Amino acid sequence: MPCPAENALEGLLSTYHELNNAFVPRVPGPPTPLEFLQYVRRNQPVVFTGLMEGWGALERWDDRYLRERMQGCSIDVAVTPLGNADSIVNVDGVEHFVKPYTSSEPFSSFMDYLRSRHMNASSTPPSTIKYAQSQDGNLSKEFAALAPDLPPSLAFADSALLSAPDAVNVWIGNSDSTSALHKDNYENLYCQVLGKKKFVLLSPLEGICVREKSLPVASYDPQGKIIKEEGHSINGWPSVDPDVGESGKWWGKARPMRVELHRGEVLYLPALWYHKVSQEEGDEGICCAVNYW
Amino acid sequence: MPCPAENALEGLLSTYHELNNAFVPRVPGPPTPLEFLQYVRRNQPVVFTGLMEGWGALERWDDRYLRERMQGCSIDVAVTPLGNADSIVNVDGVEHFVKPYTSSEPFSSFMDYLRSRHMNASSTPPSTIKYAQSQDGNLSKEFAALAPDLPPSLAFADSALLSAPDAVNVWIGNSDSTSALHKDNYENLYCQVLGKKKFVLLSPLEGICVREKSLPVASYDPQGKIIKEEGHSINGWPSVDPDVGESGKWWGKARPMRVELHRGEVLYLPALWYHKVSQEEGDEGICCAVNYW
Repeated sequence: MPCPAENALEGLLSTYHELNNAFVPRVPGPPTPLEFLQYVRRNQPVVFTGLMEGWGALERWDDRYLRERMQGCSIDVAVTPLGNADSIVNVDGVEHFVKPYTSSEPFSSFMDYLRSRHMNASSTPPSTIKYAQSQDGNLSKEFAALAPDLPPSLAFADSALLSAPDAVNVWIGNSDSTSALHKDNYENLYCQVLGKKKFVLLSPLEGICVREKSLPVASYDPQGKIIKEEGHSINGWPSVDPDVGESGKWWGKARPMRVELHRGEVLYLPALWYHKVSQEEGDEGICCAVNYW
Repeated sequence: MPCPAENALEGLLSTYHELNNAFVPRVPGPPTPLEFLQYVRRNQPVVFTGLMEGWGALERWDDRYLRERMQGCSIDVAVTPLGNADSIVNVDGVEHFVKPYTSSEPFSSFMDYLRSRHMNASSTPPSTIKYAQSQDGNLSKEFAALAPDLPPSLAFADSALLSAPDAVNVWIGNSDSTSALHKDNYENLYCQVLGKKKFVLLSPLEGICVREKSLPVASYDPQGKIIKEEGHSINGWPSVDPDVGESGKWWGKARPMRVELHRGEVLYLPALWYHKVSQEEGDEGICCAVNYW
């Protein structure tokens, strides 16, 4: 018997794809609140250029400056064997959702790690890959010394969404790390400071295409060994890698959009959009971004 | 074999219902463009009260005034045997999408019809039911004499949606007429002038619940006989009457919202929302509304 849900969902997807962009537009920013809301109301990702002009972060951040400002500070660093924080890993034949090990270390030693990797960029990645990606509003915590170089919030978004951001996060890493496809429950403004990021984006309606799974949870230990967290599981984690795809019927109906975010550009990523993020470091081996959500 | 689309669609529906209102809020208007866009971006119907204060239509329209202004004018009137313009009717055992007969008649004779029906409100409906419901921007055409009593557009919506309305329509009828469940491809602002309207609303995501069908098209003739339009069909017409429902699994997952729109109130009905509309006439037997889309 044919499944009526299948027709209905195919109809929703094809109507959605007909009515919406197949690409992420690049428009000059900053937008007015009303202009920004045109993208929000269409639930449509967009890149704003020129929005970060005059930001201290864009003008001053480099290896030397960051070390100077962060002198004496420690930060949380995600540590994994494959640069795969929060991803699906097969453990004894069973897929697990595996979280990184998190260690606190001096900012300067983390920057030494990035610099040394940059000096040996052509070699194979180290067996321990580090990514500063704590997402708990770290700009007001471990990165507080950098806060004067960033606006505390984005005025156009505050006006449009009728609230200040819940959190502002600094991300520092290099091309060894990738964030697997996932979604966040936040309207997200992602601001590129150094290097660039590559996003693959899928709309919330494409949930069936990315084959969400319920998975047991595990974590890496400092040596990269996987420790199962008995009794813990995660729901609705997308299992398709959009850079690999799969042969299933539904993946064939997905329309992943790709966009590169360059220094000084801001990506508006609507809440609940699936995104995979890979990155390329800039001149000094650093990929650095700040996001408001 | 279980159908993955079924789970996916059930998930979308239940998430949607969790994250959204189960009712249509009533808020004081007029909104600012930013306030209005909060509803637009959430694709959320809302009733604005107080928005029509000072409108000539609200202050002056009644049987006498309308006849005076429209003196000598003719209007298009939808004529059906059951007050069922644009609805599904069984013809020789086959469901058809049946359109009304449209006749042009003097405005005064149409008002006589409403008045006479009002005088005999307790009797059974006449065998020919009339509804002035042309939706072609009739305020600038057959109802042009009434245009001075209405704003040409709603400033908050123009600013928010970055465009003036495509059309402004006047609707005049009584409780004998009902608009069957359907959807329109427009952001709609529906302004109640006389009497009241009752809306049943379903979100675009609930398409599967309303069992959309492809149907052959027919029309009523002036005597209420159905004339098939060979070779014409319509796609995606919802077949469930939300006031009746059905026993199917998917209708059970629908969450129809009901709202009554009273004199002086404005309903924002987002594009592609399903709506069934019934009406109650006011003191003089007239139900009258104006919509901007």
